[in-house]
Amino acid sequence: MDDGMIASEALSRLMLDMGQRARAAARVLALADTETKNKALIAMAEAVEAAVPAILAANAADLNEAKARDMAASFIDRLTLTEARIAAIPEGLRAVAALPDPVGSVIASWERPNGLRIDRVRTPLGVIGVIYESRPNVTADAGALCLKAGNAVILRGGSDSAASSGAIHEALQKGLASADLPEDAIQLVPTRDRAAVGEMLKGLAGAIDVIVPRGGRSLVARVQEEARVPVFAHLEGLCHVYIDAAADLDMAVSVTVNAKMRRTGICGAAETLLIDRAVLGTHLVPILSALEDKGCEIRGDETICAIYSAAKPATEEDWRTEYLDAIISVKAVDGVDGAVEHIERYSSHHTEAIITDDAAAAEKFLSSIDSAILLHNASTQFADGGEFGMGGEIGIATGKMHARGPVGVEQLTSFNYRVHGSGQVRP
Amino acid sequence: MDDGMIASEALSRLMLDMGQRARAAARVLALADTETKNKALIAMAEAVEAAVPAILAANAADLNEAKARDMAASFIDRLTLTEARIAAIPEGLRAVAALPDPVGSVIASWERPNGLRIDRVRTPLGVIGVIYESRPNVTADAGALCLKAGNAVILRGGSDSAASSGAIHEALQKGLASADLPEDAIQLVPTRDRAAVGEMLKGLAGAIDVIVPRGGRSLVARVQEEARVPVFAHLEGLCHVYIDAAADLDMAVSVTVNAKMRRTGICGAAETLLIDRAVLGTHLVPILSALEDKGCEIRGDETICAIYSAAKPATEEDWRTEYLDAIISVKAVDGVDGAVEHIERYSSHHTEAIITDDAAAAEKFLSSIDSAILLHNASTQFADGGEFGMGGEIGIATGKMHARGPVGVEQLTSFNYRVHGSGQVRP
Repeated sequence: MDDGMIASEALSRLMLDMGQRARAAARVLALADTETKNKALIAMAEAVEAAVPAILAANAADLNEAKARDMAASFIDRLTLTEARIAAIPEGLRAVAALPDPVGSVIASWERPNGLRIDRVRTPLGVIGVIYESRPNVTADAGALCLKAGNAVILRGGSDSAASSGAIHEALQKGLASADLPEDAIQLVPTRDRAAVGEMLKGLAGAIDVIVPRGGRSLVARVQEEARVPVFAHLEGLCHVYIDAAADLDMAVSVTVNAKMRRTGICGAAETLLIDRAVLGTHLVPILSALEDKGCEIRGDETICAIYSAAKPATEEDWRTEYLDAIISVKAVDGVDGAVEHIERYSSHHTEAIITDDAAAAEKFLSSIDSAILLHNASTQFADGGEFGMGGEIGIATGKMHARGPVGVEQLTSFNYRVHGSGQVRP
Repeated sequence: MDDGMIASEALSRLMLDMGQRARAAARVLALADTETKNKALIAMAEAVEAAVPAILAANAADLNEAKARDMAASFIDRLTLTEARIAAIPEGLRAVAALPDPVGSVIASWERPNGLRIDRVRTPLGVIGVIYESRPNVTADAGALCLKAGNAVILRGGSDSAASSGAIHEALQKGLASADLPEDAIQLVPTRDRAAVGEMLKGLAGAIDVIVPRGGRSLVARVQEEARVPVFAHLEGLCHVYIDAAADLDMAVSVTVNAKMRRTGICGAAETLLIDRAVLGTHLVPILSALEDKGCEIRGDETICAIYSAAKPATEEDWRTEYLDAIISVKAVDGVDGAVEHIERYSSHHTEAIITDDAAAAEKFLSSIDSAILLHNASTQFADGGEFGMGGEIGIATGKMHARGPVGVEQLTSFNYRVHGSGQVRP
């Protein structure tokens, strides 16, 4: 572990070398069978369990440094590992081992009139670059998901968690070694120099196939702006709940409260409530009262403020704001069309929900909005790979290419065509 | 149609405006039903048929200019439209109308233990930018495929074919209008200024979702180098045929001759022949003689030249060269492992074939090589969307993200998740 800065040319060489080693490891991983990958994942889980004291000690060192630099309490909390938090790591590794292996599965197969059989088969993507902030357990989560999909990974964790991530990474490498897989399959950038991130974003001379940023808006924005390779990410989750004229009132209340207040800091939390003018008289007050009872601040348009006096006036800026906090913006709209219009204008195209008993209204909402996840009669907080049954996710993507929505093991694969003939030539 | 250059600021404004109009059209197209899109395609076919004299006249103007500038014969040939070549355009448009509509189809559907039903549904990608050289009929091919997948398209044809492409484009717009679809769904960049390409590669302020370059190596290289948006393309097709020890001799001869000589100028043409040392004595001479009989030049490694005296010595450069001509490089290798090693080192990851009666050898070859298309006992010249049964292609991609291999209508789509619940909230 390097504690400080290194010369930029040396850094560039170091990173390019990591890229080449990852590429070589990826070729081995692509051919590794499911049993071998699972053996490595289980061995990693055991190695983490054996390393709890070492990981706690490394984390204590990180925490001392962070406290000496007067970091915010929320930052310290994210950085802190406890025995319980460390126990979640082997649990996650074993869960990934239990997932089906996507590599080699035949996605589609058809036969041509000339007898050629065309199979579309899942293959690994190659080398994934993961750039994250000071949440040390991402080291294991991301490493495990990439490995299961047959990819090599280059991890660049937050510099404040370098010691903690390093201790976890050491356990992962033990797991790889005990399954005879190359240790270069999961590499951790060994310098705190932020220029390492810039090198990764340039793709390490073609060695990196895709970058996954895990962290706050500023990290994701930098990655999306600078990356010369594809990125799986969402900049923000400005999610909407629309209460249709045909919404069941109890459901409207419970789903809205859950979508906003279950956890306010996650990307699937609702930020704006849209309500059909037709049910302002019956539905608005019960929903807003329930939100207020949970401690939520209400910011409404003129119509909302006129009906619900506790609401503060919303500004144009409110419709564009991902609060990630106990605040909601509320607007009256004219039916599904009004809701779609507002959402297409302001949404970050992450997740939106409609509450209605009218199947046609739901169908219109779901087919008219260009967001990654659309829900009918369910909370936006279900926007999560685990909740989708993907067994874990490396993030949620709002791009429209390749991966969209939760990015699980399957989304970390590519495919190729394998064509079986009996001597066919093209006329 | 603008004949020359326009000021760079005006060009930038023009292109951004095209992007905004394409984005608006894309929203309408995304909701257009299959019948409406097909109606437009059929009407386009009829409009092209009615415009044959106008298209021929426009093409004559392009040809006059090209001849005045002493362009090469192959260039003039690509640019030339005849009544027969124009007749292929409505035929292609009707074929695209007959294809299944991918938009709205449910790719996957599953239910969660809490009763949520998750559908993964195909959606259009949005706005496609197509940059092509002086083959005017790409105007219709690309426009039709993008429309069928519900995408708006911005076409930028070669400046030498501006009049021809313009005449075809006019017919496409008549077709759109007669189905009440926005004419901005298929836009043609109305300037010959090459800076327009640069603007498209920057993505038109987020308006372009993906760029498809159609043309020679230098065009594709520029696009891949400069594009700030995803690109579907292949830089070259350096395709290999490997003759395994267990190859049937007759099949080895006929497939190799077809793979190399059916058409030498297409990306699926074989450029390198690899042959297992074990069958040098039996297979080499018949295969190379058959190639020579068809007028193919042979460039071999030392072993090959020692056995087949008509072969010229191959240099290191030969293994890296896509001849697109009646030349083949030939190398003796040690079995499948030797073939895989050579291909992973030199291939452009487009298409490779193995000829063998040994199923295990074929399986090893197909699963070990990271190329878009792998064939067992069939010619590499099948690397084509039409031959794959996709009903047409906008190109072939060697990237590993989103689309790989032939890019047909289905590959021009994205997807989203539509989740159906009954009031579920997340615990």
